[in-house]
Amino acid sequence: MKAYKNMSREELLALKAGLEEELKLEEAKGLSLNMARGKPGVSQLTLSMPMLDVINSKADMNTLLGNDTRNYGDWDGIGECRRLLADMIGVKKDNVIVCGNSSLNIMYDTVVRSMVKGVNGSTPWCKLDKVKFLCPVPGYDRHFKITETFGIEMINIPLYEDGPDMDLVEQYVNNDEAVKGIWCVPKYSNPTGTTYSDEVVWRFANLKPKAEDFRIFWDNAYCIHHLYDDIQDEILNILEECEKAGNPNMVYIFASTSKVSFPGSGVSAIATSKENMDYIQKFMGVQTIGHDKINQLRHARFFKNIDGLNAHMKKHAEILRPKFEAVLNTLDKELTGAEIGSWIKPRGGYFISFNAMPGCAKAIVAKCKSLGVVLTGAGATYPYGVDPDDSNIRIAPTFPTPEEMEDATRVFVLCVKLVSVEKLLGEQ
Amino acid sequence: MKAYKNMSREELLALKAGLEEELKLEEAKGLSLNMARGKPGVSQLTLSMPMLDVINSKADMNTLLGNDTRNYGDWDGIGECRRLLADMIGVKKDNVIVCGNSSLNIMYDTVVRSMVKGVNGSTPWCKLDKVKFLCPVPGYDRHFKITETFGIEMINIPLYEDGPDMDLVEQYVNNDEAVKGIWCVPKYSNPTGTTYSDEVVWRFANLKPKAEDFRIFWDNAYCIHHLYDDIQDEILNILEECEKAGNPNMVYIFASTSKVSFPGSGVSAIATSKENMDYIQKFMGVQTIGHDKINQLRHARFFKNIDGLNAHMKKHAEILRPKFEAVLNTLDKELTGAEIGSWIKPRGGYFISFNAMPGCAKAIVAKCKSLGVVLTGAGATYPYGVDPDDSNIRIAPTFPTPEEMEDATRVFVLCVKLVSVEKLLGEQ
Repeated sequence: MKAYKNMSREELLALKAGLEEELKLEEAKGLSLNMARGKPGVSQLTLSMPMLDVINSKADMNTLLGNDTRNYGDWDGIGECRRLLADMIGVKKDNVIVCGNSSLNIMYDTVVRSMVKGVNGSTPWCKLDKVKFLCPVPGYDRHFKITETFGIEMINIPLYEDGPDMDLVEQYVNNDEAVKGIWCVPKYSNPTGTTYSDEVVWRFANLKPKAEDFRIFWDNAYCIHHLYDDIQDEILNILEECEKAGNPNMVYIFASTSKVSFPGSGVSAIATSKENMDYIQKFMGVQTIGHDKINQLRHARFFKNIDGLNAHMKKHAEILRPKFEAVLNTLDKELTGAEIGSWIKPRGGYFISFNAMPGCAKAIVAKCKSLGVVLTGAGATYPYGVDPDDSNIRIAPTFPTPEEMEDATRVFVLCVKLVSVEKLLGEQ
Repeated sequence: MKAYKNMSREELLALKAGLEEELKLEEAKGLSLNMARGKPGVSQLTLSMPMLDVINSKADMNTLLGNDTRNYGDWDGIGECRRLLADMIGVKKDNVIVCGNSSLNIMYDTVVRSMVKGVNGSTPWCKLDKVKFLCPVPGYDRHFKITETFGIEMINIPLYEDGPDMDLVEQYVNNDEAVKGIWCVPKYSNPTGTTYSDEVVWRFANLKPKAEDFRIFWDNAYCIHHLYDDIQDEILNILEECEKAGNPNMVYIFASTSKVSFPGSGVSAIATSKENMDYIQKFMGVQTIGHDKINQLRHARFFKNIDGLNAHMKKHAEILRPKFEAVLNTLDKELTGAEIGSWIKPRGGYFISFNAMPGCAKAIVAKCKSLGVVLTGAGATYPYGVDPDDSNIRIAPTFPTPEEMEDATRVFVLCVKLVSVEKLLGEQ
């Protein structure tokens, strides 16, 4: 395929005319498809239905330690579920607090606690003139929304295929006392699907923060969410590396089973140092008497152990691969060589990140919408919803069926082409 | 029985000698009983076991509106569960947000949100020099712990049999702009078991707060937790009364099924005005994508409606009545006329509140503990854990069996007598 930028005006106009014909055909179909959010599809949800039989009226409701999960107690989670999530995250059980149904909620609470009560005794962030967070971009909109909500200044850090620009991260963290945190999705990143290299993780662990209350918010949301059996990304254990580097309290790890069992009815966890856990308990013990331990028991009994989790994730992968490949194959086939966009083939996670020609993302998303295909809003992957290049588009291929994904991607590619041609013709 | 205070020194010494003999007998038994916390007993938990069969792998997982409870969505709760909890609280469904497993958590979040982001646009409380809460006493220790944690000054308000001292409440609320809230358990109060009269509720609704961001934290924890069929307390609808009085946004109502279904695995709710709900959503929508909707569905399907809830609560009452009566009968029999303590016979709720002679509560709790009977720490029912009279003791009769309750109450009464005698002899 000829690169669009090398086409003459006549070639572009001819191309445009053809694309507009295709557009009319798509319009006529009256599609209604949604690639906006990372929602599991119905067939994935079905995988976990047997979990609902594990705890029934005849079940033994006691934990392995003999505590009744139906009553108050075990504020930090029942032992067997702490073990399960510790193995999922790759840390020691003693470093894990199992919470409720949402790791986002733990992150929000962690930021709020730091705002009002500081970090392990530091000055509450709300008493400071300025608090800043580093935000590898493109990233997860809901992370950015938390820091935006609390008036925390967000600084874009380019995210490369091996992780964030660590020179820049070091420069900020090691020199600016107002920098109190960084949002990371280290494995199968949302939305790029990339995984931090060992060197990047090591450099994170070896930061020399100017602020003693600087923390890495390590959202390992996709820790076991591989798409393939044979090529699986792994990351270095950040908690261990931080310990080794003399920064034992520098990282909070978050994870959940939202995309393992049920979104909204999973279990979530925070993993961190003992000292951080003690500080968290001071407030979590005031906030709640405990989380839903029956649901924790349900998860522990159903998955049994990390092998059970991994076997379950293989079934997810079998459902998700065709959807991802439907998108990727169409992108390969339709756009390779056109030089109007780039994308990374992820080996796990929930998204495909597409970079359009600068200045085209909003127009592409709007055009898709006019054809009945809803994408995540352009800019959503950047702090304040502002993508300075107006280039990045997050594709969430998990919820639609593979057939719907094909339809949606065909429309997407058509819109990319058309907007790009218009841009090159000076019409955008 | 002769009033202890009217006994001669000789009579007291003789009484003491007899009590000390009894004490030795109790010591020898090596009891280990806990009346400290309002935990449902095992037979109560058993009542809800069939709930665990309602949602199984064959169940229709869609709400009445056709939303899949397994996936993301319905941040404010599924319709049928909002309806159920609205009927339980006695408000309109549109005024209810169903949340996770803990109403305490909603209260904590509500205070924290006000600290960091203010109330419907007011100055965040953390930016103010002084924030005060009124605390009817004796009250719920976990309420007080929330306000204490955030450095909110707590002011004791006497709680009478018909509710808080409303003259005092009006005086503070209507004149002091720093007074931002009041903790209330309006029905079967924790720990006194008393219920606010219609006049008290009306006076609450008709407050003229000096602070526009003053809110009533109305923890209707025991709204359907009657002990008797024939005598049931009811309270005026505070949300409606506030509307009528031109104070539509002045109250947050909290409730949960923690002591209906399972502590830790129930559903909780906040009921308030539409304007308050809109403000809450701004932050709750950042905090979480949604609460556990499968558990909401489980509750809605199992209880069906308010009649189902009430029928279920009757079964709880049948279990609880003998436990309450075991305590009350012993108190009546052993202490009437001695004038060394007073108590109220509750018609619902989870506690019996005992007022010992001033200066005796700590000693009684300590003596009970030395005999293997754990009570809520003396002072716990007061802000900062300080009961100025050292008089109030909260008895939680729900968790032990009726037989254990009898043992525990016998020990309790013995300790009350002995400490009172020592006090009158000048030994305490």
